[in-house]
Amino acid sequence: MKTLKVGIIGFGTVGTGVYKVLQSFPEIKIQKIAVKNINKKRNIENFNYELLTDNPYEIVNNPDIDVVIEVAGGTDPAFDILTTAIKNKKHIVTANKELLAKKGSELFQCAKENNVIILYEAAVAGGIPIIMPIKTILCANKIHKIAAILNGTTNYILTKMAEKELSYETALKQAQELGYAETDPTGDVEGFDATYKLAVLSTISFGKKIDINKIYREGITKIKANDIKSAKELGYTIKLIALGQVLENGEIDVRVHPMLVAKKHLLAKVKNATNSIMLSGYPVGDLVFTGAGAGSEPTASSVVGDLLVLASDLEVTNNPIPLAICRHDEYAEQINIGDTYNEYYIAITAGNHPGVIGLIGTICGQNNINISTIMQKGINEDNTAEIVVITEKSKESDVQNALKDMLKSESIKNIDNLLRVMN
Amino acid sequence: MKTLKVGIIGFGTVGTGVYKVLQSFPEIKIQKIAVKNINKKRNIENFNYELLTDNPYEIVNNPDIDVVIEVAGGTDPAFDILTTAIKNKKHIVTANKELLAKKGSELFQCAKENNVIILYEAAVAGGIPIIMPIKTILCANKIHKIAAILNGTTNYILTKMAEKELSYETALKQAQELGYAETDPTGDVEGFDATYKLAVLSTISFGKKIDINKIYREGITKIKANDIKSAKELGYTIKLIALGQVLENGEIDVRVHPMLVAKKHLLAKVKNATNSIMLSGYPVGDLVFTGAGAGSEPTASSVVGDLLVLASDLEVTNNPIPLAICRHDEYAEQINIGDTYNEYYIAITAGNHPGVIGLIGTICGQNNINISTIMQKGINEDNTAEIVVITEKSKESDVQNALKDMLKSESIKNIDNLLRVMN
Repeated sequence: MKTLKVGIIGFGTVGTGVYKVLQSFPEIKIQKIAVKNINKKRNIENFNYELLTDNPYEIVNNPDIDVVIEVAGGTDPAFDILTTAIKNKKHIVTANKELLAKKGSELFQCAKENNVIILYEAAVAGGIPIIMPIKTILCANKIHKIAAILNGTTNYILTKMAEKELSYETALKQAQELGYAETDPTGDVEGFDATYKLAVLSTISFGKKIDINKIYREGITKIKANDIKSAKELGYTIKLIALGQVLENGEIDVRVHPMLVAKKHLLAKVKNATNSIMLSGYPVGDLVFTGAGAGSEPTASSVVGDLLVLASDLEVTNNPIPLAICRHDEYAEQINIGDTYNEYYIAITAGNHPGVIGLIGTICGQNNINISTIMQKGINEDNTAEIVVITEKSKESDVQNALKDMLKSESIKNIDNLLRVMN
Repeated sequence: MKTLKVGIIGFGTVGTGVYKVLQSFPEIKIQKIAVKNINKKRNIENFNYELLTDNPYEIVNNPDIDVVIEVAGGTDPAFDILTTAIKNKKHIVTANKELLAKKGSELFQCAKENNVIILYEAAVAGGIPIIMPIKTILCANKIHKIAAILNGTTNYILTKMAEKELSYETALKQAQELGYAETDPTGDVEGFDATYKLAVLSTISFGKKIDINKIYREGITKIKANDIKSAKELGYTIKLIALGQVLENGEIDVRVHPMLVAKKHLLAKVKNATNSIMLSGYPVGDLVFTGAGAGSEPTASSVVGDLLVLASDLEVTNNPIPLAICRHDEYAEQINIGDTYNEYYIAITAGNHPGVIGLIGTICGQNNINISTIMQKGINEDNTAEIVVITEKSKESDVQNALKDMLKSESIKNIDNLLRVMN
């Protein structure tokens, strides 16, 4: 095998993992590593500090580098750095989900014009093989649905909330102490990270470009210990689900939000920081891929996997393998959340009046919503009652209208939560 | 894309599925289909009966065919047919696990000499992508363990035994009525099918040839309703597990047998005819792949996936992609079951004497076996007692000796079952 000369941009958790794993592959030679701080001590035995540069352009403009590994993250300056690399005919292996979700279209166009490959297995679900399987062995399929747990931090928090009956705030704090959540957890807990990954995964699965601004997104910050408890009583567990589906009319429904997942569903069994992706397609049926969605070593597995496939391809031809090129020129027709149909969990605080259950039923009926379960959960000290409703499949806009109608009644004190349900 | 001309050998469930799926891929042209009976009516719209031949050599000797799809099964005459095809420089896509397990070594050698590719995603776990991911995106990994449910029939039977408290015989009969089990179920229920798949999967995972005659194999026919019940009480479910692991000294432990699987283990959640494969490797950690392990359409997904990848590869080069060639020249050092270490479930019928629990404990201790749980399950009408023992990790040969010692005592009437345990 000929030697592949690579430069690495970013030397944090993932970059260090890639460096370590590459020590077993002499056919891949690391020429340079771009870091923020070249003086920082690196916890690697016999590390050659002369590999380091604080100027990533030294890598992307270096004629002696074939492939650029980008594991720095963010869109700026990553976009400019990678387009420069591509124009210099370098292939790209990247873990940068945000960049791909926001600027993938321009990047792939640029790669096409310059006849180079961009591989990005590590951008979605860390070590789980999903992007390359979809592009290769699953390519006979029309994939029509993705339902996935793509963010380890939120899954860890929700697992601990359920197992130890913690509040969101306490579970978040513990996750931060253990390094599962960042000091500013917004990117994870508000669903941005899952949204980027879902955009990338949907594009490759459905063969259409996805506009991330049209992806409906809700995080987990509004999940209360009470919701977890009610869900449990009803036979569900709460997960942050990344959902993508192709509707019968060809429109695409892509969204990230918490869901009550039925306990018998395989995604309900996915605990702690583990990720899991369920794909449904024809002819394959349902597939589930589960594994570590983050971390130094699992993510390095995907980066180095991409690199070795590239090395193998480049040995036999200087043209990229057609399957390694993304084919998705059109934008998807993405529908609005208001037009989606779901089953719902509605948590209500109501006055402890006779007839309040009837009132809720009537309002639901007036808004075309069939109730499948309604449960009064006891009386609070202030003489209010907690009521939980599970609906049959209903239109989101109807449900939103029903909630508005409920709040107009004096008997309904508060809508505590509205969550969607996956059976 | 250039047209790839294929011949299909075998036109049962899988062959028909492949035919149907290929209708959406005009770049793949079916030239001929070899069947046993060319006069049989085929349940396919507008089917062109002129495609049929009852002579597979018309396919493998046809200069106008590039790829032979073999979905007939068995070793004879499949081996001669495929070696003839290979010598005629035809690439092979096959679902034939038995042939690969028994004659893979010769086939791959022949393919190497003739510079053709053999792809076989469909041979292991039907529609689940596992072979190509291991050969491509996971190739940075050293895989050290496989634990898998590779046979849908037995998993279906065991699921029904657990859910409906059926005997093995009743569950088998129902599975046969529903088409999940064949009239002669031996290949499935005695573990042969899982053994072939495990041999193929272990070879590709561990990079060594596996001698299937050295794979320890136990089927599920000895599992009793009582075992399922005791397992449930202890927090386990019983599954037919295909296990492959690389030991610290490099020896390889490969076997197929029923196991008590802890309820929290992801493989315990795999129900009915679903298959699931857990791979453990460095750097990726644990991965689980779950999906349909058989059936016309899922298996066709893998066959056509292989074919499309091949078509894509052949467009850019006439040389096979290095990763598509199996690299495993050496035979594995396979260890005997007697030398393996496991936790055990032992079901014993004992006389209802005081001290019998102590006796069992003493015999275990004399044979270097630590007991972790011992449970007396009540007294039978004939004044015997059912006792269940769970051991800590012990050597198989020690356990076998302990069972012999127990049977020497008058107090121990019978060893009802010995099963291994996975936590």
